[in-house]
Amino acid sequence: MPVLSPRAAQTRLAQLPGWKIVSGELVRTFEFKDFVAALAFVNRVAELAEQAGHHPDIDIRYNRVRLALVTHSAGGLTAKDFDLAAQAQNLAL
Amino acid sequence: MPVLSPRAAQTRLAQLPGWKIVSGELVRTFEFKDFVAALAFVNRVAELAEQAGHHPDIDIRYNRVRLALVTHSAGGLTAKDFDLAAQAQNLAL
Repeated sequence: MPVLSPRAAQTRLAQLPGWKIVSGELVRTFEFKDFVAALAFVNRVAELAEQAGHHPDIDIRYNRVRLALVTHSAGGLTAKDFDLAAQAQNLAL
Repeated sequence: MPVLSPRAAQTRLAQLPGWKIVSGELVRTFEFKDFVAALAFVNRVAELAEQAGHHPDIDIRYNRVRLALVTHSAGGLTAKDFDLAAQAQNLAL
């Protein structure tokens, strides 16, 4: 799984509204109506993560959930990160 | 719900192995065998949090879960924080 070039990363980022690259990680904070809704989202993301064998950092702050993705084994952002971000994006719609 | 005195907080902290007070919050990181086990713990903590109407900050890093508790409305650590920490502690045994 190769690290994406900056240009390729920017192209994929443009397709993910609300996501940013912060300190080399692909990051977004999602907001829900309450803690229970936030937890439900976390559990759906967790299922996708297990299926992909790729696990985001997940920070829960009551009704807000921050996901941060990077491929540590590759030393940067890969297609795996953008694929999982896109799936998480679809869940939150 | 009054903020505990430093002495009262230290007394309660002594009953919670592995917990520390960091930047005014009651904090512990729990380690599990894998991501699925970590998520199961998060869901049990979430149930307790909902019952208590008191929600810790929860950071998931694959098989590690960091909980951080403080009573924002009181401006410090209260019995609510130590009570929820003690319940989380029992879950992780």
